[in-house]
Amino acid sequence: MADLRVVLVSPRNPLNIGAAARAMSNFGFTQLRLVNPYAVAFREAKSAVGAEAVLREAVEYSSIAEAVADCSLVVGTTAGDRRNLDQPLYRLETGTRRLRRHQGPAALLFGSEKHGLSNEDMSHCHWLMQIPCRAGHKSMNLGQAVAVCLYECIRDLRGGSAQVGKKAATAAQTEQLRLRLEEALRISGYYKHTAVAGAERRLRNLILRLQLSQRDATVLLGMMRQIVWKLKADAQSRQGCN
Amino acid sequence: MADLRVVLVSPRNPLNIGAAARAMSNFGFTQLRLVNPYAVAFREAKSAVGAEAVLREAVEYSSIAEAVADCSLVVGTTAGDRRNLDQPLYRLETGTRRLRRHQGPAALLFGSEKHGLSNEDMSHCHWLMQIPCRAGHKSMNLGQAVAVCLYECIRDLRGGSAQVGKKAATAAQTEQLRLRLEEALRISGYYKHTAVAGAERRLRNLILRLQLSQRDATVLLGMMRQIVWKLKADAQSRQGCN
Repeated sequence: MADLRVVLVSPRNPLNIGAAARAMSNFGFTQLRLVNPYAVAFREAKSAVGAEAVLREAVEYSSIAEAVADCSLVVGTTAGDRRNLDQPLYRLETGTRRLRRHQGPAALLFGSEKHGLSNEDMSHCHWLMQIPCRAGHKSMNLGQAVAVCLYECIRDLRGGSAQVGKKAATAAQTEQLRLRLEEALRISGYYKHTAVAGAERRLRNLILRLQLSQRDATVLLGMMRQIVWKLKADAQSRQGCN
Repeated sequence: MADLRVVLVSPRNPLNIGAAARAMSNFGFTQLRLVNPYAVAFREAKSAVGAEAVLREAVEYSSIAEAVADCSLVVGTTAGDRRNLDQPLYRLETGTRRLRRHQGPAALLFGSEKHGLSNEDMSHCHWLMQIPCRAGHKSMNLGQAVAVCLYECIRDLRGGSAQVGKKAATAAQTEQLRLRLEEALRISGYYKHTAVAGAERRLRNLILRLQLSQRDATVLLGMMRQIVWKLKADAQSRQGCN
């Protein structure tokens, strides 16, 4: 997929050119091609934050035919509202699967901000893809459309979940925690207001539902110990007082 | 998923606010919330093409706590370069699966263009998601990051399965619980033994990691109220004694 050429056809807005290049850089694509860009826009885009390398290597062409000449697969993007498309149209998820299977250089075409790809432009494409937007608002911003398509291209490829693993608390820890909490509740008079039968079981259930990590269980146990200590100290000082 | 709140924290650039709103409109999301947006930027963004409806309904808040008070799941986004994150971190694909399974209102937080979400901001989050960018360039444009995340949310929905879950505690509930626990710890002298700086944030992190149900949050809040009441009563009776 790193071999994919991103082709912007007649882009007009420097911010969009810069945004397309930035998304390419984010997702690891390097080959940007521009067909008849508005010259001023291209010049201004070159200073886009975080996309300098991609923009430095970007190549200008005066026709789609030249821009895709070395590619053995050409895929167009469209909001897909027009009828009578001459090419097969796939949802982005499905189309990208096809694109990944292709062996050899491929091009992904995006039309201009205002009109998208024309029928003439599409005639260079083997098939088309469409980002699944809601029916009432299908026209996406160019920079965002590029970002979403390239994300789908690299999605899930690198595998592996990025979750920070936590070590779960042992039963001894959760039981200690239950005992301290129970003690605090008893001294505080919490159980005057509720039935005591089954209290131990319910408290244990509640603590297990928290699925505590060892670290959090240790912190909570320290907190409960301090609270119990304070409650007991208060009780003693009150006794001394009476 | 249509119930998802998109929360932009301290956005500075009107183009990004407009782009976020446009992506929301493209993918069928309507609830935009802004925490301390740069006022001029918000005003200018209101004229963004194709996002008028979303921006008209956008609501401003002065803190994250207020912006997510009615949500029972709060998810943050991060480039994930910082070490020692206090929250579990998932890749976008995995995290979105979790997000879809959640029943009840959820918020998806995006930090400011320059700094992303701070540790303080993240302490309001149950967990974090990261868009899988290449290691050398992880920082995405805000509008593009919103587009990619929302695309993943609606992607391939026809295959998605719903799971019967428990009703999760709201941010208002967990915040109440944190306040009571903090009070008990303060009165008990717990904070004499640990650094107080960042205590609020750490306590919030700890409670959100518990992923409490509404029912358990209510029970725990009742327990903490009783313990705090007792600690205060003891303190008063000790004063009367001296």
